[in-house]
Amino acid sequence: MLAAAPATDWRTLDARRVLYLELSSGRVVIELNYEFAPASVTNIKTLVRERYFDGLYIVRTQDNHVVQWGDPSANRPLGSARASMPPEFTKNIGNSYFTVLPDVDTYAPQTGFIDGFPVARDAVHDKEWLIHSYGMVGVGRGADPASGNGTILYAVIGQAPRHLDCNATLVGRVVAGMELLSVLPRGTGALGFYTEPERRPVIRSVRLAAEVAESERTSLELLRTESVSFEKWIEARRTRREPWFHAPSTSIDVCSIPIPTR
Amino acid sequence: MLAAAPATDWRTLDARRVLYLELSSGRVVIELNYEFAPASVTNIKTLVRERYFDGLYIVRTQDNHVVQWGDPSANRPLGSARASMPPEFTKNIGNSYFTVLPDVDTYAPQTGFIDGFPVARDAVHDKEWLIHSYGMVGVGRGADPASGNGTILYAVIGQAPRHLDCNATLVGRVVAGMELLSVLPRGTGALGFYTEPERRPVIRSVRLAAEVAESERTSLELLRTESVSFEKWIEARRTRREPWFHAPSTSIDVCSIPIPTR
Repeated sequence: MLAAAPATDWRTLDARRVLYLELSSGRVVIELNYEFAPASVTNIKTLVRERYFDGLYIVRTQDNHVVQWGDPSANRPLGSARASMPPEFTKNIGNSYFTVLPDVDTYAPQTGFIDGFPVARDAVHDKEWLIHSYGMVGVGRGADPASGNGTILYAVIGQAPRHLDCNATLVGRVVAGMELLSVLPRGTGALGFYTEPERRPVIRSVRLAAEVAESERTSLELLRTESVSFEKWIEARRTRREPWFHAPSTSIDVCSIPIPTR
Repeated sequence: MLAAAPATDWRTLDARRVLYLELSSGRVVIELNYEFAPASVTNIKTLVRERYFDGLYIVRTQDNHVVQWGDPSANRPLGSARASMPPEFTKNIGNSYFTVLPDVDTYAPQTGFIDGFPVARDAVHDKEWLIHSYGMVGVGRGADPASGNGTILYAVIGQAPRHLDCNATLVGRVVAGMELLSVLPRGTGALGFYTEPERRPVIRSVRLAAEVAESERTSLELLRTESVSFEKWIEARRTRREPWFHAPSTSIDVCSIPIPTR
């Protein structure tokens, strides 16, 4: 099925909207979503350009939940980045093509995909928002909804924590290298924080792909979620035709549809 | 809330229905479910008593999916265990207390919990079945639905693969030690199989808890899923009251409710 997808149904990444999180174990590639979180993405790009994250740490790894990184001391200067951000938890419904899923969802009136990201929509209230699927990257914050500024980021490594939807700003998705985050040793403190500083995995650097020489960029194509091929992919995941399946399901939820890459 | 639960709302494990999967990194504790999979659980207990799994391997670790263990050569003699099993993918609805969840589910008419396990139910067709939540343990099989005999087992380490519901026999749930399975390096072969035999994590032994001296058993209590305290727990997870939540959700799916242990 994927082999039959025409070349035009695949897209490359826009290097201006891709982060490379470099760990000792390798590179995690994060696609940023400007459409749903313009202010947060802009601030994160400022932090990255000014090398805010270099030499910082993964501070928390909670089993079946999230990996989180940032400055454990919270002392590092912000440079020209903003210290606080407006919440970008939801937005008004835009004009982008929305590939809608046919099945009921426990949490939202509608779910589907926009430009390579899982999205929920509430048409009655003119709201749409990114969904906390596996691999989604969000902005950590304190009790004040406006306290997240992009210096603390997390990635989902377990069952989609849908209760966080509309409560945190999602800014991107890991499109390669998830297996470097998901295997990190779980922190033994509350919420998976590492209690011994020397156990925290080090962040070598975070770079915008556009800052990296072309020869050193990760080459990757993603199936366009607005393509006919992706609709076929959804249908193939929704009702599995492989002979192994004895009683194929006839429905699928948005967090169970991986977005094909090559 | 959990601190206020009366002692009678907690239960200990029945040592005759608990497996200890011993890895070099520690012990994984699996509670077996006899009610939903009597034949498979009986066969697995026979295999364990005859030391079938000792010295075998984790053969497959697929990111956001499953860890699977067994005999990579498939040569080890079965002893007095049966070579094939009837599928135990669903069963007729029984009399056990069913704690029903109030919200819609993408995959089944009803979901909830029976005796500490996530369960789906289709009353019209008089069927109920265990659900592939995080930590659930199932029986690997080939194309023939009757080909699973318990020599190959898997545990869910990612987003609940609900498409496997009713297609494989679930026999238990990891109640402690998930973080030993979820951090295993992902296999680089198709489906996460380890391509280099020396990278396969070794299974030191699998024992029935009842075979282990009481002093060496893992002491654990689980909140009874048929208790009033568990109903309160569901409600607390369904709509989060912690001040951090800006827009608490008002629904929850069965795979997002961890069963409290202490």
